[in-house]
Parts: sequence; C-alpha cells; structure tokens
Amino acid sequence: MSANWFRRRFLPGGPLPAPRPPRPRASPVPYRRPRFLRGSGSSPSTADASCRPDARPVRSPVRGRALPWNAGYAEIINAEKSEFNEDQAACGKLCIRRFEFGVEEDQEWLTLCPEEFLTGHYWALFDGHGGPAAAILAANTLHSCLRRQLEAVVEGMVATQPPMHLSGHCIRPSDPQFVEEKGIRAEDLVVGALESAFQECDEVIGRELEASGQVGGCTALVAVTLQGKLYVANAGDSRAILVRRDEVRPLSSEFTPETERQRIQQLAFLYPELLAGEFTRLEFPRRLKGDDLGQKVLFRDHHMSGWSYKCVEQSDLKYPLIHGQGRQARLLGTLAVSRGLGDHQLKVLDTNIQLKPFLLSVPQVTVLDMDQLEPQEEDVVVMATDGLWDVLSSEQVARLVRSFLPGNREDPHRFSELAQMLIHSTQGKDDSPTQEGQVSYDDVSVFVIPLHNQGQGCSSH
Amino acid sequence: MSANWFRRRFLPGGPLPAPRPPRPRASPVPYRRPRFLRGSGSSPSTADASCRPDARPVRSPVRGRALPWNAGYAEIINAEKSEFNEDQAACGKLCIRRFEFGVEEDQEWLTLCPEEFLTGHYWALFDGHGGPAAAILAANTLHSCLRRQLEAVVEGMVATQPPMHLSGHCIRPSDPQFVEEKGIRAEDLVVGALESAFQECDEVIGRELEASGQVGGCTALVAVTLQGKLYVANAGDSRAILVRRDEVRPLSSEFTPETERQRIQQLAFLYPELLAGEFTRLEFPRRLKGDDLGQKVLFRDHHMSGWSYKCVEQSDLKYPLIHGQGRQARLLGTLAVSRGLGDHQLKVLDTNIQLKPFLLSVPQVTVLDMDQLEPQEEDVVVMATDGLWDVLSSEQVARLVRSFLPGNREDPHRFSELAQMLIHSTQGKDDSPTQEGQVSYDDVSVFVIPLHNQGQGCSSH
Repeated sequence: MSANWFRRRFLPGGPLPAPRPPRPRASPVPYRRPRFLRGSGSSPSTADASCRPDARPVRSPVRGRALPWNAGYAEIINAEKSEFNEDQAACGKLCIRRFEFGVEEDQEWLTLCPEEFLTGHYWALFDGHGGPAAAILAANTLHSCLRRQLEAVVEGMVATQPPMHLSGHCIRPSDPQFVEEKGIRAEDLVVGALESAFQECDEVIGRELEASGQVGGCTALVAVTLQGKLYVANAGDSRAILVRRDEVRPLSSEFTPETERQRIQQLAFLYPELLAGEFTRLEFPRRLKGDDLGQKVLFRDHHMSGWSYKCVEQSDLKYPLIHGQGRQARLLGTLAVSRGLGDHQLKVLDTNIQLKPFLLSVPQVTVLDMDQLEPQEEDVVVMATDGLWDVLSSEQVARLVRSFLPGNREDPHRFSELAQMLIHSTQGKDDSPTQEGQVSYDDVSVFVIPLHNQGQGCSSH
Repeated sequence: MSANWFRRRFLPGGPLPAPRPPRPRASPVPYRRPRFLRGSGSSPSTADASCRPDARPVRSPVRGRALPWNAGYAEIINAEKSEFNEDQAACGKLCIRRFEFGVEEDQEWLTLCPEEFLTGHYWALFDGHGGPAAAILAANTLHSCLRRQLEAVVEGMVATQPPMHLSGHCIRPSDPQFVEEKGIRAEDLVVGALESAFQECDEVIGRELEASGQVGGCTALVAVTLQGKLYVANAGDSRAILVRRDEVRPLSSEFTPETERQRIQQLAFLYPELLAGEFTRLEFPRRLKGDDLGQKVLFRDHHMSGWSYKCVEQSDLKYPLIHGQGRQARLLGTLAVSRGLGDHQLKVLDTNIQLKPFLLSVPQVTVLDMDQLEPQEEDVVVMATDGLWDVLSSEQVARLVRSFLPGNREDPHRFSELAQMLIHSTQGKDDSPTQEGQVSYDDVSVFVIPLHNQGQGCSSH
C-alpha cells in the first residue's frame, strides 16, 4: 500500500462552524532549524500563540527572565520528512473559572474574581500525519476543550469528595456513602474531564477539517498539573517518563496497532463488515501466499495472547488487518498508530474501508501525586514524540538527564538546554554529548518539565 | 433480582453426545467436613478420579508415601452454602504424546513409546454457581482438552523456536526470521493451548449441560508446569499467588463485573439490543430513582476511567448493566463473575436477556520461568477460590505461609497441613493459628504447590 493514503473529499451537508481554521505554513520549516518554545506567566490563550504554526521563535525575549511558574521547556525539530512541520506543541497556564450554583448563565461572568480561579499548567505535544492540519487544530483547541470540561465539574473537584449530585444537595441521605464506597475522588473528575476533552477536540477537528476541505490526524500527549497532582493523558505513540535520581517511571503507554491488536481484532470479529472482505482479521508471522495454502501455520485471533497453528484457507491469504512489526506495523496497511485525533475521512487507498472505527480518540490517563512524591531539585518529566523514543530508550534518556543536570546547576536555562541536548542526541551531531542511540529521521519534539515546586502557588481555591 | 436466577429449559435440536454426564452427590457434603486431595504419580485419568464428586477422601492411603512428583496439596471445604459442593478440584500428571509427521491418523498410536511423552503437572480449581454440574464437568474435562490442544502443537513446543509451518518445512527461506521478529516462543504455544482448551471445555460443558437438562457455570483457575515453566490460567475470581521469603507475587487477576466494567459496557455500547431496553449501560454511584430526574449526577461510560456528571434522563433510571460494588457487584443483576465456563442458558430472571455474550471463557495466562526463579525449599504457589481471598489478603496468606513452613521442616505432610491451616483460618476456629481476617461463609478450596524441584524430572523430550 502506498504512503499516499489520504484522499481529499467533501462530505455532503451544510457548512459547519469553523472558528480559527488552521493556517499551514506558507513555506517549509528549514531542516534542523529548531523552533523553541518557552512558557511564560500567561492566560490560556498564550498557549495558542506560542504554538501557532506562524509563531516566531520566542526563545530570546524571555531568556533569563524569572518565570512565575515552572513552565517546562520544549524544543521541536522538523526533519524535512514533510513539507510542513507535523509536530506541534502547546503550553500555558490553565485557568478554570468557578461560578456559583444558581447563577444564571449570562450572569456567570459577573461572579468572577481572581480568587475564584483554579489554576494549573498544561503541556501538549501533537504528532501529525497526512499533513499538519489536525496537529495545528489540536494545539489550538484541546486546552480550550479541557478548560470547558473542567469548568463543568470544578465544584466537584474542590469538594473533599465529589458529591453525587453536582448541586451539592443530597437527594438521599445515603448518597455520600455510595460515592465513598465507589472510591470516587476529585482526581477521577480530572481524569474524566481529560477523557471528555480529547473526545470533544476530536469532534471539533473532524468538523473543521471537513469544512475547510483538509485531511489528516495526529497523536496527542498532554500533561496537566492541578491541585498537587500531575495528570498525563496519552493517545498515540508519544511517551512521557518521570526521571528521578534513582527511578525511571513510565507515565504513559504507547497505542499502536501492535499494542492494541486484541481490541482491533475484536472489533473486526464483532463487525466483520468493517473489513469489506478485503482483509483478514487473523495475525500471521508474515503475509501468507498461495503456496501456504493447506499448510498449518502460526496464527493469533482476537481472544489469544498466545499463538497456535491453523490450516491455511483461501480467506487467510487476504491482507492482514494488522501487518508488520515494530515501527513497520500498520493498521489496515495504512496507519502506524491506533489512537489519536482527526482522521475522520481517512480510508484505505482505493477502497471505502474507513480507519476511524478502529482508531480511538480516548486517552489513557496516569495520575502522579506530587505531594506524595516530594520532588527533588532535579526530578523532571520528559515528554517527547516518537522521533526521540525511536532512537533512545527511556533508560538512555534518563542517563542523559542525570549526566546533564548536576553539572549545570547554576545555568538558569538548564532545562531548556537539556531539551535541546536530547534532540541533538538524536541527530548524530558531532557536538552531541553522547553517541548513544541511532539517528532519527523523524520530527522530534521534547518537553522537559521540572517538578520541583510545581505544585506551589499554582492553584488557588 | 432473586438469587434463584436459573431456569431449566431444553433447547430444540437432536440429542448431543454426552459422555460421562455429571453425577451430582446424592446427599449434601456435611458442613466443614473437608475433602482432601493428594496427588500421586498417575496417568491423567487419575485427575478425573480424584475430583469425581463421588470420590472418597484419599488422604490417609497416601500419607507418608514418597511421591514421584511434587503434586501439591489441596483441601476443599463445603460451607453448606449449597446442597452440593460447588467447589471442585483436579490435579494430576499431564502426559502429552508426540507423534511423527506424516504418520496416518490411525497409525499415530503405534509410534508411541515412553520416551515420546512430554510430561507436566496440572492443578485446577473450579468454583461453581447455580449448582455443581458445570464445575464437575470442568474438573472431568478441562485437562483432556488441554492435553489435546498441547498435542496439536507439541512439535512446535519442543523446537528451539516454533516453526512457522507445523510440518517444520520452510515454505520460504525467510520464515524463521519472521517468527523471530514477532518474538514467538515455545511458551506462546502453551499459552495458546490453554486459551483454546478453556474455549473447547466451555463448548463441551454447553453441549453436555444441554443434553442432560442441567444448568450452571463455574470459574476456572489452572496451574500447569511444563518444560521448566509454570503457567497460571484464570477465568473468574479465584486467585493464585507466589509466596517466597521476601516476595509475594500475584500470578492471576480477578475477572468480575467491576474489573471488566469497560469491556462489558463497550459490548453493550456496540450491541445495545443485548440489553433489550431493560438495562442502562451507564454506571452511577447507586441505582437512580425518580427524584434524581433532571439532576446532574456522577456517571461513567465505557470509554471512561474517570468520572463525570450527566443530567439524569428517564432511560438512566433503568437497572444498571453492572450494579453494586465489591462482593455485591452483579452483571445484569445476576452474576458476580465476568469470566468462566458454562452458563450457556443463563438468562436474566423473567426475560430473554442472555448473560453469555458478556461472559468470556477466555483465561488470562501468566508465565513464570522456574529455571530463572531458582525456587528455594519454602517457595510455594497458593491457589484458592474466592472463599479464601474474601477474608484473607495475599499478604495475610503469605504471612501465614512464612510463619508455618519453617517450624515444620521435618513434617512430610507440611504442605498439606498448610492448606488445611489456611482453610481453618477462614472458619473462625478456636484452634486457628491466627485470628487474622474474618470468617468465610463460602466454599473454600486451596492448593499449596511447592516449587522446589518442580521442574526436575518432569519432562522428557
């Protein structure tokens, strides 16, 4: 199957609202010309600005400035793989309005004052495919979706325990007991808000791409600090890890056709019509050919973790639903990830077989209690797109972090320099501090988020 | 919903083959009269005999006899919860025939000789519900299914790496490379065989129960040692743990409506007709009533790990697909487990809503490399039905194991005594060596399997 698997088409139907349509770069990003992002004390809209594809590098103006919050530091590099930069990033302060119950919708704004904000921080990486459009839309939209979802449940978040009824009024005296027995905590509302925000953003991207006649999709990796906790939500093959002096902890899992094989095969088992008779649901070690017919070959079906043998029939010679391994594994011969945003119109080349039913926009969310962790000066979270992890393992990145930070304690830009150094390590440069790993030919984006003092001064109830 | 949720009925169709129909006990097992099992050097059929419901206690005859293999020791107790003992067990030697390629089916037996057996050991616990019939059938059948499934792949198991084609003849020179790249190992064939054996056994139980006009289901927990590895396959809420001097390791996960909520809700989302308009797919902290209408209440849907709020509509007042928490959680108001064997005819009381589409017979399989583990004298696996784990945690059981074994090093029956002691600990007896935990009112079955020397002399290639 060709790599050119996107077909532009217009679906019937009236025009959809398209605020802030994506504006792809007029010219390609120069090879290895890094675009630096550094957060600053900001309203959420700054996250929009800093990640707009036409935003200028903002590194110099804020160099050395005391930042009112530990913004984290990003470096993004375009590997000339595509005409436009398919990696996009966003970061900023997340301000969640609180409003009182019973206040009319149009009066809601009047009740605001600075003390009524619940604030957190937000970092996001989006790795686009089939063009940068979905990644740009996601970088412009997801934090707004998240803020909206959090505002819808904020009263539950600030209570000792989320009330069964959002009004806070018990319908039955036993209601708090049921909530406690189910073990529902404030953090479950943030997890739920992240899950809903990804879904909402996916719908927005679908509408906006359709309205503007564009196509594409992207992975999404988001970190949020709120009320002393760090939330990492992931849909795709980016990765976040926690690096401490004597610990490397994964904060996300990758979602690829291989890691989600059973879910994807299960869907094809329940709805065989999704494969339109063109694909086989079964997994084999390689694609079967005519001379395999009648042989007993290794196979796996949806309910199996292990392998068994089956007698090859004609239908087994079809192209496999998931084919290839490692970086070459593809869903329906088309896509290397199994979760992400966008791709609403993506079909298998020259067929009507849609990818979307197999693709999920739902993230997996990990929660890290920062109060319990008691982060030290050099504890960081490293978030990066697959361009980094293709050539460096989590342990290799941790070694680079640990070898870099202690020698640069006085440098106010050390986290930014660390992000740069990690990217340079993937480029096979002469000045690279290490020759670990291989050379990456993919776009690479890295956030380094220092955790020390991250929880302080970030939230006001 | 009543506990009397079984309806006997006969499905249309001709008679099905029913070898060895289950023979339920004619009289109930006396309260707290334990039935002891002790394995012996045996052909696989001994496992049948030792677990037949009419088998007599076999403890005394083998006391003190040197066993040719570490059989493990079981104790089963009937808690008078049901008229017949719904807990059943099986254990024995697993002998897998090897036959040569190209030998005709009817000549296959002629090629056998003792050296052509691959041998392992097998332990299984089945916790029945709705009567003992399914558990008895499973104890009589599953090891035969497993032997058959292993024999179908044994040539792949004894190769350095399973060949892509079972004939061993490469169709293409690159075949071994594909198998290696997929990381397929001999142990994956055993995992696949266990998965297929559970499915096959489930089909046998379905046919035999239908043919004999009986009903019911059971959980299944199986441990197998083969080629230096321990495999634990679990479908239900029994549990196996590894207890070492300084480690307690879970070897299984429990499958209940709560732990499998997302899979079950997902199926109802894809096939809403399975609920026949009688149930709501959504989870709430408690069942909603009329006075919740219009309120915003906490809820979770299939795609959510976290919680959110929704405005209550009329359809949310239906009975929840999964209701209650902990031991009280029920699938469709009927069943406390979400995986197991049998239950083919089980319907929600007074409806045509079937449980089976939501129930899986597929086990989760854990593999423990015993060669790598280098088991010490007092390293054991404890397998038990939920009656034990309802009142003792894994850590409490590990403490009891560690406090019991060192003081009884000279006792040749110490593992058997340990199994008894663990059960007594759940019965609130005066002579119980500990007052940890609470009293169990459920059937309780325990296997204690010493791991030391378990891999030796068990397999001949």
